[in-house]
Amino acid sequence: MAKFQKLTSRSEDYSKWYNELVVKADLAEQSAVRGCMVIKPYGYAIWEFIQAQLDKRFKETGHVNAYFPLLIPKSFLSREAEHVEGFAKECAVVTHHRLKNDPNGKGVIVDPDAKLEEELIIRPTSETIIWATYKNWISSYRDLPILCNQWANVMRWEMRTRLFLRTAEFLWQEGHTAHATQEEAIAEAEKMLEVYADVAENIMAIPVIKGIKSPNERFAGAIETYCIEGLMQDGKALQAGTSHFLGQNFAKSFDVQFLNKENQYEYVWATSWGVSTRLMGALIMTHSDDNGLVLPPHLAPIQVVIVPIFKDEDQLKQLMEKITPLEQQLKALNVRVKVDNSDKQTPGYKFADYELKGVPIRLALGMRDLENQTIEVARRDTLTKETKNLDGIVDYIANLLEEIQQNIYKKALDFRMQSTREVDDYETFKKEIVKGGFLLCHWDGTPETEEKIKAETKATIRCIPLEPLPGHDNKPGKCMVTGKPSKQRVVFAIAY
Amino acid sequence: MAKFQKLTSRSEDYSKWYNELVVKADLAEQSAVRGCMVIKPYGYAIWEFIQAQLDKRFKETGHVNAYFPLLIPKSFLSREAEHVEGFAKECAVVTHHRLKNDPNGKGVIVDPDAKLEEELIIRPTSETIIWATYKNWISSYRDLPILCNQWANVMRWEMRTRLFLRTAEFLWQEGHTAHATQEEAIAEAEKMLEVYADVAENIMAIPVIKGIKSPNERFAGAIETYCIEGLMQDGKALQAGTSHFLGQNFAKSFDVQFLNKENQYEYVWATSWGVSTRLMGALIMTHSDDNGLVLPPHLAPIQVVIVPIFKDEDQLKQLMEKITPLEQQLKALNVRVKVDNSDKQTPGYKFADYELKGVPIRLALGMRDLENQTIEVARRDTLTKETKNLDGIVDYIANLLEEIQQNIYKKALDFRMQSTREVDDYETFKKEIVKGGFLLCHWDGTPETEEKIKAETKATIRCIPLEPLPGHDNKPGKCMVTGKPSKQRVVFAIAY
Repeated sequence: MAKFQKLTSRSEDYSKWYNELVVKADLAEQSAVRGCMVIKPYGYAIWEFIQAQLDKRFKETGHVNAYFPLLIPKSFLSREAEHVEGFAKECAVVTHHRLKNDPNGKGVIVDPDAKLEEELIIRPTSETIIWATYKNWISSYRDLPILCNQWANVMRWEMRTRLFLRTAEFLWQEGHTAHATQEEAIAEAEKMLEVYADVAENIMAIPVIKGIKSPNERFAGAIETYCIEGLMQDGKALQAGTSHFLGQNFAKSFDVQFLNKENQYEYVWATSWGVSTRLMGALIMTHSDDNGLVLPPHLAPIQVVIVPIFKDEDQLKQLMEKITPLEQQLKALNVRVKVDNSDKQTPGYKFADYELKGVPIRLALGMRDLENQTIEVARRDTLTKETKNLDGIVDYIANLLEEIQQNIYKKALDFRMQSTREVDDYETFKKEIVKGGFLLCHWDGTPETEEKIKAETKATIRCIPLEPLPGHDNKPGKCMVTGKPSKQRVVFAIAY
Repeated sequence: MAKFQKLTSRSEDYSKWYNELVVKADLAEQSAVRGCMVIKPYGYAIWEFIQAQLDKRFKETGHVNAYFPLLIPKSFLSREAEHVEGFAKECAVVTHHRLKNDPNGKGVIVDPDAKLEEELIIRPTSETIIWATYKNWISSYRDLPILCNQWANVMRWEMRTRLFLRTAEFLWQEGHTAHATQEEAIAEAEKMLEVYADVAENIMAIPVIKGIKSPNERFAGAIETYCIEGLMQDGKALQAGTSHFLGQNFAKSFDVQFLNKENQYEYVWATSWGVSTRLMGALIMTHSDDNGLVLPPHLAPIQVVIVPIFKDEDQLKQLMEKITPLEQQLKALNVRVKVDNSDKQTPGYKFADYELKGVPIRLALGMRDLENQTIEVARRDTLTKETKNLDGIVDYIANLLEEIQQNIYKKALDFRMQSTREVDDYETFKKEIVKGGFLLCHWDGTPETEEKIKAETKATIRCIPLEPLPGHDNKPGKCMVTGKPSKQRVVFAIAY
């Protein structure tokens, strides 16, 4: 089957490997609508696990979910000047509200009589419509803070799209909070950055650098943008989540004031923060290999697959007498286990398919195993196999899942640490940046220097790290380009 | 506060009562975009409980979630002739993909150079885009069945909108399944009707009649539409969910064939089924009263609220010594409990607020209770209060929640049974229908008779019941209008 033609290898063509993997592992595919993807059930199941982990943490930190309209009046986008400058241009515009039968033939046409008075924009992000709403919710300090999140689809009319990484429509969550003080809003933005880093590292097994963006890379309308940055296997950086301190910008644009305890009117302080289905791209490009997807057990829809090797119904029956109790015991430990005893595919086909789909542990049981009271345990992360005694196998598997989770993270962290180098002069930088990875360099803090570096090398400042990276420090130095003073090294990379 | 101005009573103006309740109980409100609502956190939390109950049952019955594009090419809507006839007219049309700065002034305008070659429609429902996708997923009987669901927003440009009941944008789930045989597809459509009825009756406490639609009321493109119908307190019917057997209509329109076991090509058999945020409207109008929302405990974000009655910090401290362990014990039984010991509002304000929001049980504890080892228990459904001994209160509360759930259902069922009458002649029908409720009548099965009745009385056939209603039978008779033979009584009502 075409599905099992070997994947293009990563060394041959990383980009092609990625595109093939996403489709062959049944994660997503292009739709009939330009730039919009279909998220297939297996890919969506992984996204649901990511969602559940995030949503749990949002609620634990006092947030509530709500839902705001998909469409935004065009005039709203002009309200916050920087916001519209940085954003609102490439987006889907609704101009009419009716179709009618084509009088000249078959099919339907847009009814010219149903033109909207004001065009509506499919939300590229919801700050404007949400702050227009918050205006009605906030009058006193008693109404604050408001800690809302929404799970939604958004749309940005991207010219060049890639599944999960950059699509016209994508799924995300966007938190929008309103506070009485600047300090509280900043603390909120930082808290949500920690939530994102926690999910990225401990659930997705993706090591991330927490930092703040340089002014050039800031969200349109933000005072400060916090971010987590991951390093993909091909040496490119990927921004995995952002949290913005918006100051009073949106409150001023939408005139949202509150009466403080001193009975004076003040503008409200805001944050917004979001992660999207782009995380699926980060997950794939951090862990997977030439055989297909590699999933951290915490996110694997199937954590353990059990494949009996049998020639006939009678053999299968004997094998199932061992397998069924094993399945039950694993389920009792909340392990997501699947028994694949279908006779439609060969064991070889099944092995390749579960490998492609990144199932962390594959167990195989044949007639000889039955005699010997053994079972074959194959790990997806290391591609190693071993024969284990059936005694104590349940605990072994449960522990092994955790070990795989840790191992996948460590592997990615080792790779990132090896790929992170300090560079002190611009000529070396130009040679090193093309090799990929994170370069830690001094920068004079000016947009001009940042732009020059970007124009000449395509590298951008991924972030100004909040903490020293392992084995590095955050001490001052001199800009590698201009020699002017630099407060600390910043992270440069070529980014997705 | 304006919030606690008494609600308009139901007897005074049911429609006004509903609109006020939705806003005052913090469920939803109108947005700046015509016909689109904001679902507020409290309303959204209830919707999340409904979602969770449905999603669990979808997965238990073998379904998986996926995500398909928001936008549908205009030409797709013309493919299934009946579908476009019944549907596609009032919908949001995307014609452009870019804004630009207005050269004549401030703000942004639609860039005329960014006109789409083919207009895109915001999905009013997703049969067309999904069947265009399934074409690529299905080639053999081995690929079947496909049992996908999606949670999504959809848009229908309704002229007159009401919060939850009829909004331009709403949230829903839509299941779309593909099968090798007609029998299997019909069984699927019927199975999902049972799932909907289960959630409506056992979780939402809404009694529903399961039935099939008359041809006039069928979904555009369906061979058979199954539905559940509820009766609201004002005597109007509300369709709470539908499940469609689509035959091979969409498979033919999108040319989706499979190779069967006999190695012959056949068109695939389809179903689709959905419920939406309209269920929130059904929930409100089935149970609530003139004091506000009444929530069945299974869906209440707060099931029990505990309010200490105190004059100073010292009293509060003494009360909290009883309340904190009570809270812990209730939480240990998975009761969603909230302790409101804020000193910003008076107990009276709090009581009215939790009543308005439909919290099933309110516990109040004052200093005299402390002396007597008692606590006041107030039930939202009956508006009764009693003083109970603190001994054994935890089990009492846990049981009471279940009792309230049953009582709410029973009350609604009693109301429906009282409001359901057999009527055998058309003159009586005309008098009775204006009183509201379900009328069980014989009908000759023709669209003409149905249309005549609708034109003359506004009543429609809500469904042809699948089972006899309690106290009634499904025996044949004669049409109340034409006297022609009728297979069984059908349910007439004025509907939302």
